[in-house]
Amino acid sequence: MPLWMVYHPVGAFTTEDKIAFARKVTELYAILPKFYVNVIFHEIPRNSFYIGGEPVDNFIRLSIEHIARTLPDDRKAWWLERTNEAIAPFVKDRGFDWEFHIPSRSHDLWSVQGYRPPAADSEDEKRWARENKPSPRTHD
Amino acid sequence: MPLWMVYHPVGAFTTEDKIAFARKVTELYAILPKFYVNVIFHEIPRNSFYIGGEPVDNFIRLSIEHIARTLPDDRKAWWLERTNEAIAPFVKDRGFDWEFHIPSRSHDLWSVQGYRPPAADSEDEKRWARENKPSPRTHD
Amino acid sequence: MPLWMVYHPVGAFTTEDKIAFARKVTELYAILPKFYVNVIFHEIPRNSFYIGGEPVDNFIRLSIEHIARTLPDDRKAWWLERTNEAIAPFVKDRGFDWEFHIPSRSHDLWSVQGYRPPAADSEDEKRWARENKPSPRTHD
Repeated sequence: MPLWMVYHPVGAFTTEDKIAFARKVTELYAILPKFYVNVIFHEIPRNSFYIGGEPVDNFIRLSIEHIARTLPDDRKAWWLERTNEAIAPFVKDRGFDWEFHIPSRSHDLWSVQGYRPPAADSEDEKRWARENKPSPRTHD
Repeated sequence: MPLWMVYHPVGAFTTEDKIAFARKVTELYAILPKFYVNVIFHEIPRNSFYIGGEPVDNFIRLSIEHIARTLPDDRKAWWLERTNEAIAPFVKDRGFDWEFHIPSRSHDLWSVQGYRPPAADSEDEKRWARENKPSPRTHD
Repeated sequence: MPLWMVYHPVGAFTTEDKIAFARKVTELYAILPKFYVNVIFHEIPRNSFYIGGEPVDNFIRLSIEHIARTLPDDRKAWWLERTNEAIAPFVKDRGFDWEFHIPSRSHDLWSVQGYRPPAADSEDEKRWARENKPSPRTHD
């Protein structure tokens, strides 16, 4: 479900950084099957990223699509904070500037390995989480 | 309308593969003007794609934006299946793992070659399909 | 807020072009704090972009996410026109083909430099615009 796109300057992260970053993101979604968490790093070359018309080489832009769950209104500010905390060691604490937004996507136009993911908190979703892989639905 | 973004490992597809893939996708939207179908392939370098915190080099993630048409609820499961069938020769049958989702976009914030695309199934849309290029509206 | 993703052929724009393009986009959103305007250029290699199943090397696809403001229905056609005019010197006037769409995002799932951006036209937003940087909210 969550599809994290991380647009970052060339050389911002080593492979070790990226692994640690992706693991931190996965922990953030501990209620979900781990394999729901997609993180893709996109290196943006110099002079290809502009903020307010000025080239930036110190900026990290994240686009975070949520599919498996929709945040209720009263949890949104809290979730933004949690997300900021999770990424801080890789972003703020290293002196990068950053911005992110979290678009919500429809659960019912989503397919993983040919399967329609089961409903939130269903028996099937629990099995997917336990086995960390998709499998045919046994419930409705 | 449909904007297909295909995030794939380096070397997953030859140029011939990509042409065949893009043609298959175009056939999937046979009711639309052909030129509505955009497919962009994005090669993701090693150690830049993570599923559940683990690096993957065998995973294809598709993001499929629909703009020209909105799927009614009772066609969604069917459309997911059709999409899975269309991509199978390039994805499943080659041993890749995969996931996709299909966000819906507003028809009225869309512009092609400076034109606002005509309404679904209108005379203008039929002409666009027939001529396979955009042209000024003649109907409303 | 606006996140402009510009998918373009290799070599379509020099650094000077990109700066001018990003400045033009920033002017388009003159009512917003300048630093809200994100423009990222993505070079698409040959044989990686297909329209209607045919490879294109002369096509510019823009994806323009709006977050800070939502366009009322009666301004949408006008905004599409303004956008087409703004990009014309970099796209149409150079002989490129092009397409764009403008998805709307929720203001309340958005974070800039750890802050939740203030409400539209609020005192805080005016200060952010004046100082061209985010700062703690002083109003609600």
